[in-house]
Amino acid sequence: MSNGGNAASSSTHLLDLLDEPIPGVGTYDDFHTIDWVREKCKDRERHRKINSKKKESAWEFTKSLYDAWSGWLVVTLTGLASGALAGVIDIAADWMNDLKEGVCLSALWFNHEQCCWGSNETTFAERDKCPQWKTWAELILGQAEGPGSYIMNYFMYTYWALAFAFLAVSLVKVFAPYACGSGIPEIKTILSGFIIRGYLGKWTLMIKTITLVLAVASGLSLGKEGPLVHVACCCGNIFSYLFPKYSKNEAKKREVGGWVGVAVAARARVHDEVSYYFPLKTLWRSFFAALVAAFVLRSINPFGNSRLVLFYVEYHTPWYLFELFPFILLGVFGGLWGSTRFGKYPVLEVIAVAAITAIVAFPNPYTRQNTSELIKELFTDCGPLESSQLCQYRSQMNGSRAFSDATEATATPGVYSAMWQLCLALIFKIIMTIFTFGLKVPSGLFIPSMAIGAIAGRIVGIAVEQLAYYHHDWFLFKEWCEVGADCITPGLYAMVGAAACLGGVTRMTVSLVVIVFELTGGLEYIVPLMAAVMTSKWVGDAFGREGIYEAHIRLNGYPFLDAKEEFTHTTLASEVMRPRPGDPPLAVLTQDDLTVEDLQTVINETSYNGFPVIVSKESQRLVGFALRRDITIAIENARRKQEGIVRNSRVYFTQHAPTLPADSPRPLKLRSILDMSPFTVTDHTPMEIVVDIFRKLGLRQCLVTHNGRLLGIITKKDILRHMAQMANLDPESIMFN
Amino acid sequence: MSNGGNAASSSTHLLDLLDEPIPGVGTYDDFHTIDWVREKCKDRERHRKINSKKKESAWEFTKSLYDAWSGWLVVTLTGLASGALAGVIDIAADWMNDLKEGVCLSALWFNHEQCCWGSNETTFAERDKCPQWKTWAELILGQAEGPGSYIMNYFMYTYWALAFAFLAVSLVKVFAPYACGSGIPEIKTILSGFIIRGYLGKWTLMIKTITLVLAVASGLSLGKEGPLVHVACCCGNIFSYLFPKYSKNEAKKREVGGWVGVAVAARARVHDEVSYYFPLKTLWRSFFAALVAAFVLRSINPFGNSRLVLFYVEYHTPWYLFELFPFILLGVFGGLWGSTRFGKYPVLEVIAVAAITAIVAFPNPYTRQNTSELIKELFTDCGPLESSQLCQYRSQMNGSRAFSDATEATATPGVYSAMWQLCLALIFKIIMTIFTFGLKVPSGLFIPSMAIGAIAGRIVGIAVEQLAYYHHDWFLFKEWCEVGADCITPGLYAMVGAAACLGGVTRMTVSLVVIVFELTGGLEYIVPLMAAVMTSKWVGDAFGREGIYEAHIRLNGYPFLDAKEEFTHTTLASEVMRPRPGDPPLAVLTQDDLTVEDLQTVINETSYNGFPVIVSKESQRLVGFALRRDITIAIENARRKQEGIVRNSRVYFTQHAPTLPADSPRPLKLRSILDMSPFTVTDHTPMEIVVDIFRKLGLRQCLVTHNGRLLGIITKKDILRHMAQMANLDPESIMFN
Repeated sequence: MSNGGNAASSSTHLLDLLDEPIPGVGTYDDFHTIDWVREKCKDRERHRKINSKKKESAWEFTKSLYDAWSGWLVVTLTGLASGALAGVIDIAADWMNDLKEGVCLSALWFNHEQCCWGSNETTFAERDKCPQWKTWAELILGQAEGPGSYIMNYFMYTYWALAFAFLAVSLVKVFAPYACGSGIPEIKTILSGFIIRGYLGKWTLMIKTITLVLAVASGLSLGKEGPLVHVACCCGNIFSYLFPKYSKNEAKKREVGGWVGVAVAARARVHDEVSYYFPLKTLWRSFFAALVAAFVLRSINPFGNSRLVLFYVEYHTPWYLFELFPFILLGVFGGLWGSTRFGKYPVLEVIAVAAITAIVAFPNPYTRQNTSELIKELFTDCGPLESSQLCQYRSQMNGSRAFSDATEATATPGVYSAMWQLCLALIFKIIMTIFTFGLKVPSGLFIPSMAIGAIAGRIVGIAVEQLAYYHHDWFLFKEWCEVGADCITPGLYAMVGAAACLGGVTRMTVSLVVIVFELTGGLEYIVPLMAAVMTSKWVGDAFGREGIYEAHIRLNGYPFLDAKEEFTHTTLASEVMRPRPGDPPLAVLTQDDLTVEDLQTVINETSYNGFPVIVSKESQRLVGFALRRDITIAIENARRKQEGIVRNSRVYFTQHAPTLPADSPRPLKLRSILDMSPFTVTDHTPMEIVVDIFRKLGLRQCLVTHNGRLLGIITKKDILRHMAQMANLDPESIMFN
Repeated sequence: MSNGGNAASSSTHLLDLLDEPIPGVGTYDDFHTIDWVREKCKDRERHRKINSKKKESAWEFTKSLYDAWSGWLVVTLTGLASGALAGVIDIAADWMNDLKEGVCLSALWFNHEQCCWGSNETTFAERDKCPQWKTWAELILGQAEGPGSYIMNYFMYTYWALAFAFLAVSLVKVFAPYACGSGIPEIKTILSGFIIRGYLGKWTLMIKTITLVLAVASGLSLGKEGPLVHVACCCGNIFSYLFPKYSKNEAKKREVGGWVGVAVAARARVHDEVSYYFPLKTLWRSFFAALVAAFVLRSINPFGNSRLVLFYVEYHTPWYLFELFPFILLGVFGGLWGSTRFGKYPVLEVIAVAAITAIVAFPNPYTRQNTSELIKELFTDCGPLESSQLCQYRSQMNGSRAFSDATEATATPGVYSAMWQLCLALIFKIIMTIFTFGLKVPSGLFIPSMAIGAIAGRIVGIAVEQLAYYHHDWFLFKEWCEVGADCITPGLYAMVGAAACLGGVTRMTVSLVVIVFELTGGLEYIVPLMAAVMTSKWVGDAFGREGIYEAHIRLNGYPFLDAKEEFTHTTLASEVMRPRPGDPPLAVLTQDDLTVEDLQTVINETSYNGFPVIVSKESQRLVGFALRRDITIAIENARRKQEGIVRNSRVYFTQHAPTLPADSPRPLKLRSILDMSPFTVTDHTPMEIVVDIFRKLGLRQCLVTHNGRLLGIITKKDILRHMAQMANLDPESIMFN
């Protein structure tokens, strides 16, 4: 309809127009919370429309099929894209990581391992040395050995690390500030219904992908699992714009996010939170997305681990009851690690951290190595083919340890020096991870935490092994370990330690144990894992109930209602609702005796996001709830299109216009923007129930009544503030609504 | 307080008395639904009381510790007990199953396998033949071979089977009718808040344990996994009576049930339903219970499978893309199996079914065998040590197939006869399972369904294998199968088939795939499994959305609101609420102008479970909700204790007594039984939201208002009736409330 002009035609449309959806009504502002109930209803309405039309024509039927399958399509596309991106990131990060050490002369785009595959000149034992691969010293100085070339390699390693880190931080700063960090706290908040525009957009996706490669390659102590979740959610969000079913509905969009989030990282605990709002088919789609992504990843990076699990290990000895003691110790370590305060030092420059990381990491093989490979090595049990320094036991020299009776577990100097290096690596990793998390680059805690746990575990494991070997007549070992027999598996300790640290950091529930199963295929070791993870959770909880993601959410003041935390106070709804005693009375609208001017006065004088509509000031009986944004849009829209609307036009929310004096201007009907089914509770309702309702139904606000009269309002922000107050935190830290 | 006597002392207590809890208020009748919100509040109140007292004395502190740990104690005890019972059932069923074939003369209490362990006279290949074990023919006729002894064995087999079945059905009929069936539908309903007294009691536990052994031993085509969930839930319920925290709160009692149910059978999908009402710590406790039970089971029955998984298999060949076609076919089969209507024939006598089962099962080794062992055999890949008839390939004779290049996969007549027997077994199992489920004995569908799927899968697997072997130049096989190479794993087909049938029957979500992983350790085969399970779900859904348990719940008319089923109709709350147009007006109580007589008239003339309390007939403003049972108890209690209460005593729900004429009798204050925070929705609320609220908050009823005035009421039963009506089912099938 044209903006002005033909008054007659526009006035015949007048009644219809007001029942038509007003453009802009039902959308949200940035940093606001969506209304789950309204979005769900909108979606079901749309679904019903399509369903009722589908028998009309073949075209409509095709459209309904397209609509029904669009969920699967989005998931497939997202799986394809995120799998491809994960593969590209893997390959690029590997290549750039090796670039710090040298280049492949025969093909510049090969990393170290690929470069030496083609070579026939190397044996299996020396598989990473081949003439095609040149270290920087060989290239620049022309010599491979000697202190000069060591220093040259050291220098080039640091140089590249700094270059990558600098590039990463600059790209993030200039193009997409949302690309930094792991993104998981924000995604949890977004999935719970908060709007952060651009957080899952194409710029964030692009910059996060590039800078993630750079950050990983720079050797900073960070993991890529968390950021990969963010990348996958960006893909899901971008693809959801192709399908009107998802692009036009904030709740459905979040459903896609939920599928993808669960798929890429059940690990990230997004799962638990998500399950409240989303239907069960979520899990199917998640699994499907995970499958597609895994397949793409596998076909892009076929030289990676060909199994679907990240770290596959198999141990051959059972575990013994006395080992529970060191396992629980590892759990305590994990809990302590989890209560460390990360990212408190944002002042420190990325470049400084990257320089220190590179300088300290280079001399120690366990810190120079790729972290995933380090974890794999630490998890692996010593077998006859294992060439690792960690496995240089005496009998190993004969290559007979695993198949013989394994009577020799005497450590050689190699193992002792490995132990020292592991201890140094542990200290280094702990310090650097604490400082790295919080830098303005994409970074995750998943892999670094596992690495720290695995190092600690392996150290404990070797110590217990040597103890059992030299003191096999102790009462502890006597019963289980035959003289000199190989009864301790240090690799298992590494696995337990990794699980404990991961558990401490993320405070995941049992899902963690399931994930570690998935990662390792180690179904036999459920008890050690459970013991360690539970201990780490208890220890961590003793130092503060929240995991690293919750802490981050709280620090940022996001309106996130944690599903885990139980509300145990005795307050009633009447004590939390606004207006508080002494406040001005609640800003309400009456259903049929306000003018446009009155309405605008209310809107201008208050900053509330919505207003209850009541029958009359006397009765205080509740009719519905109208959102500020919707009222503003509706009035503007009416002003633009209708001549009749002036300052003293009557506004009514009822079905029929009130009877007005003959000379009064045309009234404005606003029933279409009125939410006729606002949630209400009585003033006697305990807050624990109110909190429960907000959590389970995803509410934004709830009205409080007493004996049928409107008393006040409780918003999500009021609840978060009240909870902060109850926990003796600063209630002003809750910033958004 | 004594019942009468000292009037003065009792009248001084009068005011306090009425604010004290009235004994009996807050309990529930049989076949009624609990109020989750009220129970949860009660529990938090109790928790707060203990917490506030705990600093008073060492004794109170100990009490609070005991209270805090009682959850873990219940779980531990339940784990111990249910693990022990599962072990006892296993051992007893094994022994009685072998009793059908013979006895161990050296030790009567040994089953066949244990009997022959001690024997040194047998080789590994003939490990189940030993002189100590006598078949009935050997014992009675004195001869082991020949048609006479075959018939004698056949007769004794049938005789024992009938005896066990008869005993089982009689015990159930006489002592505990609740012990029949799998119990899972009822447990799901109970966990959702329904009360069925005695369903989880000691009699049910005892009889179910005994008759489960008998039913399994009788050879009927039934599984013991479902009934074991019931047994474990009984244990949980019984132990929860030891702890006041659980025994006095119906919601907390159900929490224990949830832990145990999830622990014993994530498989049974109890999980999905449970997660709505229960806090997250559920999962930890569930895992713990599962652990304890598994350990007890392992230490009781150390000769069982020593791994924590039920069927552990490892395959060594990958799967190929073209195999997805047979896998999907197996999925279709599973879906069809899942849409079979079980248990439609309760008229048939158990004895007849047992007799037919025994007579038909005996001649076929695949039906005579223990079903779990059959599944294990079907899952197992043919290796050099495999003596099964299914593995009699030509090259196998040399025992070299697995380690050589395996160029010979020619089937011998042994494999063909095995194929025939498998086909017959498949038909037999399908028919008998359909007739067995629904008999009045403890029975589960888990194992029979897996067996049927595994048989079908193995048949398909062998067929594809032979096809690939004889037509290795087909375009399909050409690319993947080298000439004569061993590229098909029939055992994998069996696993896929089993998963598909299980999925079809229970319509489990993804958890099924996870379970099959757990059962088999086969993490490699996620794609075949997913493909088959998803197909089976789709096919099953095409024939009717509900799984066997949901169908059972619906048939029994239990008030169970399925969390899966989406409500997609456009009805509003006003269309579902009572009173319907034309009905008498809603039975309401006014807050301060009724007499005891009025109240009793309302109670006698209606059969509603509760009544809304309003300010006055004119205003219709809602004050609260009072339950019929509570009102009755309160009036009786007042009559018994107070002299002042007569027929025309005024009843009031307000805080202060209304002003009454001077000569009026003492009024009765009922505020303590009034629920001051009833849930309300407006008449414009879409039913989809109302259904969501009922599901997520576990409501029993909800009041409907319009502009602040009370209009009507919606109960869980109304919702179920409305949903049945919308699905064109008989709304009268919903029986309880």
